[in-house]
Amino acid sequence: MSEIESPAPQPRGPADHNVREQIVVAAEEHFSHYGYEKTTVSDLARSIGFSKAYIYKFFDSKQAIGEAICSKTLEAIVAAVEEAVVEASTPTKKFRSMFNALVSTATDLFFNDRKLYDIAAHSAGEGWSSARAYVQRIEQILTEIIREGRESGEFERKTPLDEAVHSIFLVMLPYVNPLLLQHNLDLVEDAPVQLSNLVLRSLAP
Amino acid sequence: MSEIESPAPQPRGPADHNVREQIVVAAEEHFSHYGYEKTTVSDLARSIGFSKAYIYKFFDSKQAIGEAICSKTLEAIVAAVEEAVVEASTPTKKFRSMFNALVSTATDLFFNDRKLYDIAAHSAGEGWSSARAYVQRIEQILTEIIREGRESGEFERKTPLDEAVHSIFLVMLPYVNPLLLQHNLDLVEDAPVQLSNLVLRSLAP
Repeated sequence: MSEIESPAPQPRGPADHNVREQIVVAAEEHFSHYGYEKTTVSDLARSIGFSKAYIYKFFDSKQAIGEAICSKTLEAIVAAVEEAVVEASTPTKKFRSMFNALVSTATDLFFNDRKLYDIAAHSAGEGWSSARAYVQRIEQILTEIIREGRESGEFERKTPLDEAVHSIFLVMLPYVNPLLLQHNLDLVEDAPVQLSNLVLRSLAP
Repeated sequence: MSEIESPAPQPRGPADHNVREQIVVAAEEHFSHYGYEKTTVSDLARSIGFSKAYIYKFFDSKQAIGEAICSKTLEAIVAAVEEAVVEASTPTKKFRSMFNALVSTATDLFFNDRKLYDIAAHSAGEGWSSARAYVQRIEQILTEIIREGRESGEFERKTPLDEAVHSIFLVMLPYVNPLLLQHNLDLVEDAPVQLSNLVLRSLAP
């Protein structure tokens, strides 16, 4: 295609990727001071020193920026969970490590900076795709652990796999979803251990 | 004592009890229209047609009225749970009935009228005595069911009783506490059955 036939925008190369990342980092900083709810794209543009139009070249809306921040945070939780699972030697230990890593990382990332919670709450409350992807990934990791435990004979096999996974996921949900986790912060030391013990009793062959 | 020696307020007899009840009923009606947060004792007095001073003869504060409404609601939930438990024949059935009755009654009472949720949220969030008494009563009913099941051989006895009860209570908590229940309303059909199954698997001897 010649340049005359194609007045399309320039391809988004590494430079564009860097600007996106720069906007996300600056927005994360801005939201954590002023909150997600109260900030407009204009406020954000002023604080970063970009024009509003320039930001809109990279993100369709404030929600799109919020989604990018949320994705980053949720991916960090998933990475911590995956690392914890890989390091554990048996399905029992994997389950305990998973639950612990999930609760401690989520608590750190969402609540040590309350304003990031603000974005997470929007994400979970409104079913953003980043939140849905996160829930699916956690369910998938859980499924792999349960399946491995059933195959090795460490866990019972009478209950249908999907039923076992779903009910264990329901037990974990109040610590996976930041909207619920905010009310459980005084339990995060105790609950993962107690609930892991209960779940593992339910999985005994 | 002669009347001259004793200018104390009249003893609180059945008439006073009726006025208290009248204030509670009127306040419940008023709060469910306008919300607990936004209503002052003056608003309430105006709407009932009593003077503010007269209301303060019966209740120290708006919170005291809120507590009375909350107590009534929580007592209704406990009564429904107790009835469900009495009607069930085995500890397994008692546990299932308890969980079901708890979730369905709490959902009805708190969320079919969202403004009552408003009071319940204050109660649970601020640790009002009515909320603490409710949690204790639910834990007590649960303890009785687990103990009965252990004695009859229906449930395992290896786990210390208090540990078993505590972990099961943690599983139920997101459906007991209205602050958490509000985020679980799309699960109230499915979760009590799934979680009861899991808990009962963990209790198998």
